[in-house]
Amino acid sequence: MRRLKTWLETELIDVARHLADAARTVTLRYFRTNALTAANKSTDGWDPVTEADRRCEQEMRKILRRRRPQDAIFGEEYNAVEGSSGLKWVLDPIDGTRSFLCGTPVWGVLISVSDESGPLYGIIDQPYIGERFEGGFARGLMRGARGTKNLSTRTTTRLEDSLLCTTYPEIGSEKERNAFDRVANRVLLTRYGLDCYSYGLLAIGQIDLIIEAGLKPYDAHAPIAVVLSAGGIVSDWKGNPAHDGGTILAAANEKLHQVALETLELNKN
Amino acid sequence: MRRLKTWLETELIDVARHLADAARTVTLRYFRTNALTAANKSTDGWDPVTEADRRCEQEMRKILRRRRPQDAIFGEEYNAVEGSSGLKWVLDPIDGTRSFLCGTPVWGVLISVSDESGPLYGIIDQPYIGERFEGGFARGLMRGARGTKNLSTRTTTRLEDSLLCTTYPEIGSEKERNAFDRVANRVLLTRYGLDCYSYGLLAIGQIDLIIEAGLKPYDAHAPIAVVLSAGGIVSDWKGNPAHDGGTILAAANEKLHQVALETLELNKN
Repeated sequence: MRRLKTWLETELIDVARHLADAARTVTLRYFRTNALTAANKSTDGWDPVTEADRRCEQEMRKILRRRRPQDAIFGEEYNAVEGSSGLKWVLDPIDGTRSFLCGTPVWGVLISVSDESGPLYGIIDQPYIGERFEGGFARGLMRGARGTKNLSTRTTTRLEDSLLCTTYPEIGSEKERNAFDRVANRVLLTRYGLDCYSYGLLAIGQIDLIIEAGLKPYDAHAPIAVVLSAGGIVSDWKGNPAHDGGTILAAANEKLHQVALETLELNKN
Repeated sequence: MRRLKTWLETELIDVARHLADAARTVTLRYFRTNALTAANKSTDGWDPVTEADRRCEQEMRKILRRRRPQDAIFGEEYNAVEGSSGLKWVLDPIDGTRSFLCGTPVWGVLISVSDESGPLYGIIDQPYIGERFEGGFARGLMRGARGTKNLSTRTTTRLEDSLLCTTYPEIGSEKERNAFDRVANRVLLTRYGLDCYSYGLLAIGQIDLIIEAGLKPYDAHAPIAVVLSAGGIVSDWKGNPAHDGGTILAAANEKLHQVALETLELNKN
């Protein structure tokens, strides 16, 4: 990932943490309370958005307007804002709104700052547990109730030894589902339902692979920064950059990434 | 659920909490550490058991031998112990060993005390988050970092408004899978991968339904006690007691339980 001038990196990290702190306060005001109701933002299905999603993104945008008015903003819930600095904040106020509604502790707030090359720095924050995974600018760490540790991915190189995570068992198109199954059928185990939290687990060396489809850019940016900072490799299912959304393949290391990519076989037309 | 003499209820609750405290210490010694490796206890697949599972159950059995030598023990990892009191401790040292291996915070320690009628008191403990759901003997509560609250299930009565959880998307036989899908296709959303933690979410009024198959008695006892203490209803998919394992249908209330049971349609032929 690209580096910037030291003072600018320091400022961006500080702003990113400021956003995450603010998001933590807002989301916890709603999490597991009666104040929480979901509206549907889809016209042909059920795509829940809560007051917590909206308020959280509003709060983060307010901070950005004050501290980084020169940067662009791309968030899940509101219109994009143009910038003049070449830097863009990509925000998902609650990644895993369904998990949030169910009261699980595995949703997260996603914050990243990117330039035209992709994500530079990202934060995955889990407010309820109080865990924060963050990385970029040649550093990566997790902070939680049990202390701070450096991010570092695993050295697993065989699918047969790998722990795989994905959010939904119903993955993409039939072709995509078959590709996913080719990998899933070989790994040691597959876990579902973790949303962005799985990228944190990959970055602290707990799991080996994440394979998902149907992602939006705001789902992908912060997780990519965190995983790369930990030594992992991220691409789409064909080996191309994944930060524009779509399919994603995140692996603990280069070798495992290669094996997974070959097993997905999407390059064989 | 049955009541016992007050002094005996008080003692059993105290012992159950003692077991949960000890289990918390043992499991956290292994969780997310390099000391963790999984052995396979299945001859025709992969059924992981870790040193953490074994040590945790050993520790709990040691406490029971000292404090309740007259009671029977039925645990996941070791042989059953006979008792003379009519009471039986049912233990699952780590429910969700796969989740534990992946580093997720949604596995749990399951502890219950039962008599011939079924579970009397149960604890679902999540050591990493520090959350404990417990209920029976006419009380039910959750304790966590953010305080203590009474357990109480939701009043949702329509499947269309319900949040459903289950652990695996690959559920039981084809007939069972079809029955599950009849319900899943009608609910507002389905989440996967939560193991015992979902029963805690049902008991604090966050979700409405849990439908699972392939459970063992030690997976079922403590969750049943917790859900019943919160006002929920639990049975197998035919409406019979579920504590011997197999299928389970846990619902927030009588009416929703009835609708789910009818939709599963397993009583037809």
